[in-house]
Amino acid sequence: MKASQFFISTLKEAPADAEVVSHKLMMRAGMIKRLGAGIYNYMPMGLRVIRKVEAIIREEMNRAGAVELLMPVIQPAELWQETGRFEGMGPELMRVKDRHGRDFIVQPTSEEVTTDIARQELRSYKQLPKNFYHIQTKFRDERRPRFGVMRGREFTMKDAYSFDRDAESAGRSYEGMYAAYKRIFDRFGLQYRAVAADTGAIGGDRSHEFQVIADTGEDAIVYCPTSDYAANIELAEALPLLAQRAAPTQPLVKAPTPGKATCADVAALLGLPLAQTVKSLVLATDEKNEHGEVVKSQVWLLLVRGDHELNEVKAGKVPGLGGGFRFATLAEIDAHFGCKPGYLGPVGLRQPLKVVADRTVAHMADFVCGANEVDAHYTGVNWGRDLPEPDLVVDIRNVVAGDPSPDGQGVLAIQRGIEVGHVFYLGTKYSAAMNATFLDETGKPKHFEMGCYGIGVTRILGAAIEQGHDERGIIWPAAIAPFEVVICPIGMDRSEAVKDAAEQLYAQLKELGVDVLLDDRGERPGAMFADWELIGVPERVVLSDRGLKEGQVEWQGRREAQATKLALSELLPQLKARLGR
Amino acid sequence: MKASQFFISTLKEAPADAEVVSHKLMMRAGMIKRLGAGIYNYMPMGLRVIRKVEAIIREEMNRAGAVELLMPVIQPAELWQETGRFEGMGPELMRVKDRHGRDFIVQPTSEEVTTDIARQELRSYKQLPKNFYHIQTKFRDERRPRFGVMRGREFTMKDAYSFDRDAESAGRSYEGMYAAYKRIFDRFGLQYRAVAADTGAIGGDRSHEFQVIADTGEDAIVYCPTSDYAANIELAEALPLLAQRAAPTQPLVKAPTPGKATCADVAALLGLPLAQTVKSLVLATDEKNEHGEVVKSQVWLLLVRGDHELNEVKAGKVPGLGGGFRFATLAEIDAHFGCKPGYLGPVGLRQPLKVVADRTVAHMADFVCGANEVDAHYTGVNWGRDLPEPDLVVDIRNVVAGDPSPDGQGVLAIQRGIEVGHVFYLGTKYSAAMNATFLDETGKPKHFEMGCYGIGVTRILGAAIEQGHDERGIIWPAAIAPFEVVICPIGMDRSEAVKDAAEQLYAQLKELGVDVLLDDRGERPGAMFADWELIGVPERVVLSDRGLKEGQVEWQGRREAQATKLALSELLPQLKARLGR
Repeated sequence: MKASQFFISTLKEAPADAEVVSHKLMMRAGMIKRLGAGIYNYMPMGLRVIRKVEAIIREEMNRAGAVELLMPVIQPAELWQETGRFEGMGPELMRVKDRHGRDFIVQPTSEEVTTDIARQELRSYKQLPKNFYHIQTKFRDERRPRFGVMRGREFTMKDAYSFDRDAESAGRSYEGMYAAYKRIFDRFGLQYRAVAADTGAIGGDRSHEFQVIADTGEDAIVYCPTSDYAANIELAEALPLLAQRAAPTQPLVKAPTPGKATCADVAALLGLPLAQTVKSLVLATDEKNEHGEVVKSQVWLLLVRGDHELNEVKAGKVPGLGGGFRFATLAEIDAHFGCKPGYLGPVGLRQPLKVVADRTVAHMADFVCGANEVDAHYTGVNWGRDLPEPDLVVDIRNVVAGDPSPDGQGVLAIQRGIEVGHVFYLGTKYSAAMNATFLDETGKPKHFEMGCYGIGVTRILGAAIEQGHDERGIIWPAAIAPFEVVICPIGMDRSEAVKDAAEQLYAQLKELGVDVLLDDRGERPGAMFADWELIGVPERVVLSDRGLKEGQVEWQGRREAQATKLALSELLPQLKARLGR
Repeated sequence: MKASQFFISTLKEAPADAEVVSHKLMMRAGMIKRLGAGIYNYMPMGLRVIRKVEAIIREEMNRAGAVELLMPVIQPAELWQETGRFEGMGPELMRVKDRHGRDFIVQPTSEEVTTDIARQELRSYKQLPKNFYHIQTKFRDERRPRFGVMRGREFTMKDAYSFDRDAESAGRSYEGMYAAYKRIFDRFGLQYRAVAADTGAIGGDRSHEFQVIADTGEDAIVYCPTSDYAANIELAEALPLLAQRAAPTQPLVKAPTPGKATCADVAALLGLPLAQTVKSLVLATDEKNEHGEVVKSQVWLLLVRGDHELNEVKAGKVPGLGGGFRFATLAEIDAHFGCKPGYLGPVGLRQPLKVVADRTVAHMADFVCGANEVDAHYTGVNWGRDLPEPDLVVDIRNVVAGDPSPDGQGVLAIQRGIEVGHVFYLGTKYSAAMNATFLDETGKPKHFEMGCYGIGVTRILGAAIEQGHDERGIIWPAAIAPFEVVICPIGMDRSEAVKDAAEQLYAQLKELGVDVLLDDRGERPGAMFADWELIGVPERVVLSDRGLKEGQVEWQGRREAQATKLALSELLPQLKARLGR
């Protein structure tokens, strides 16, 4: 490609609404252009990256035996009513009526449509397993679209759906996709982790997120540096403590803590470690009648250590809380504690409620908690002596770095990640809802065992940039860079020697199958270099009249601080080696 | 590709709702699967064709200097309000609200978005000309979707938009696209014509449709076999007659024509040629006030020869009718003619109205028309003698085969076509509406001169099949066939020799870059052959134990009636020659 036949549009400054570095750099490098909230034009430079990402995904999906098709963006509501998602999904599902008033949706995923295809096309166990995928435009009407392509509304996703005869075979399909995803992410050239993730209502242990590592990532990834263990923080278990609970050593004392409504403030005031305090979180669950009216509510007190965080996914699995919970109202809190939040605790409750202690809290002795009295906390609180043992002792907190690894092979570390892929075992959730069956060996209809496998194609761009950038701009891995090599001739319009050398090098690199751009715009060297550092092309070659007279060119890798002078004869072998040609 | 890793699903019978042959064959060959009215899944077999069509388009668009980007499917209404299309377009424009109640549309085309990009990105004449294109999902909410992909609601289109500094340069962009389209359609291997088309309100002569020739086509294409002339029937001009109008030879006579309300019936009754009769069509135009209320109506009488058809596009260009016309009401007809339709004519009108005669009619003598009296017609009618000369004499009819060619190079012929591409000079219609300007050499802002260029990607599939099929199924041109060659081994599971030969041939063809499918499904020969004839793969090779013992294979081109026995050594050169490798 020559720059004169392409479209390059860089900006010195990012627009004010760009909050994260990937959004800023994509806007500045002319990869995307905002059309509306969370809706972007993919400009020529950005589209090149998308196409490379898609090509890698397509090759590896095909290699893994998946079959590509194309399902529509606008889908009839009927199928989504069969699974209950038309009514059940929130406003992120964009609904639309056609000219006859019939309901449709703009697809956020395609479970329903693929299952509909399967129930019509896959009639016998002999046709299984089968894995259908497509790479298609999706829409999710995010409440607050932001971060550019990271949380946009319209985006491109690869979604695949596997159909198997039984759970065992579905497990093999799952493993096959897991392996394909590893190949895909390896080929992208990104640092990533495949982490175990929560399976929600479906249960089982077959759900993995593919997280691109980046300090700016929204997700916390838990892993064990001395073993294979890796999980989403939502899932990672905080193991029970092995040692016995210590015996009480302190009396129960009510300490004045005027205006200190947080564990941190109380600990500071009392000169105690934060790990000696206990945080009280008051939740409520509602029992409803057939009309959806609340007939009875139950208040719950959840206790986690002052330096720990409640894990809402784990809380949602506590028996009794699984049906959905809310934070308690001030009236409910007053009725049970006779006090306002900030000073609450499990000692001396007015009305009975369910006390759920995190495993760590249940193990504490001589701890500090609210005294259910404004401006006061208890110290020296001990289970059994000052209050009854908790109703339930469970894991309801996020793990922290240094916690023992659930696989017993070391201690946990935490890093940040950006979820760009997900493999998920669905079981018969959709096939049962849509009565999608095949005939097994005995001629009996059986629901398909399904899995779904997504990769956020456009999101990969944002994640790659969050991982790879510096103060000058983007640093793409070569496999998904818009171009692998850029040739920057200086004074091409004035020097025949430069022009000839540039054209010849361009032809040679093209001949080798290298994706090369010749910058024939005639920009000043400084502006030209700044553009390509911003855009993030991995390899740059500069040709100048003076250099050529000495038989030399300048080469600089995007991660190198300095350019290196090379004999023209050394350049091609060097580039070939670096690009693996 | 091996069949076992692919998805093949053929049907013996087409579904009842499939009306046209391409729809039937696409359904039977498993290329598409209906999801809703006018909404289809593109199954793996169909998607392969789409990808080949897209690749050819992409290569030639890039070769012509156009730059690919990707514009969103869901577009904010604001831009469409700037051009008036949000309110102005009918219900075929699908409108949708987001969760905040803001208006969006599902794109049918992207003039607004591209013009918005241009007005932000193209600031100087130095950046021009520029041509942006994308290949993207489109939606048109057709009132009556039908004919499969030929008139679907969701479809894939390539749409390109050029931006130029002046009309002359825009003309070059137009010619460049016209040439690129010829290369694209040549490469598809389809018979087509580029025909001049009407430019509607924009005017000028720069609009061409690319029509795939097919007897089942909806469009009539007018062309001159002895010259380059080709036009859509909407546009093709019926030239003025050169000879003088003949002098009257008959007296005006009122003939009883009881129950004969059509020209054909009247001519038959009177024993006269249909070409002696004149058809009366009564139209009306309305003048409206600022509130949109009709304040005044004008009735028009349009006259075409009995064997001719009114051309509504031409009628819309008659001075006074351009603002929009309707057919007159019965009350209006009664007020002006004192008679009901079927017996109307221009002689002896009750109230004055505008009489518009087609050029052919104005040239007639001794003609037949309604007598404005039920069950009666006049014969021997002559202009000037029996009624005043018409107010206007214009071309308002469709040309017919045998009419002189407008280029004076012969006579016209007519064939049927399917419109799959359109190049159109837009002028400043969109750039003026959206105030999209660049700075010219003198630093003054100027509106872009634009062109738009569409190709219906998915429609190509239907058009190719309408053109290429027989009683056994589809006949694809090799360039866009789902596979170029299919290898059908007979008894592959029983014979090692067949299996080895099949695998070896498969590897050899792949090595040559041939898109080959090895049918390893183990189907019976009859079913296997029927599938591939239905699917329409251009070249078939059959391997059998008996043939191989004699060193022979069977080859059959899809258009051949019989298979030919070839030595294995002759096969590859033969296939290479046929596929141009």
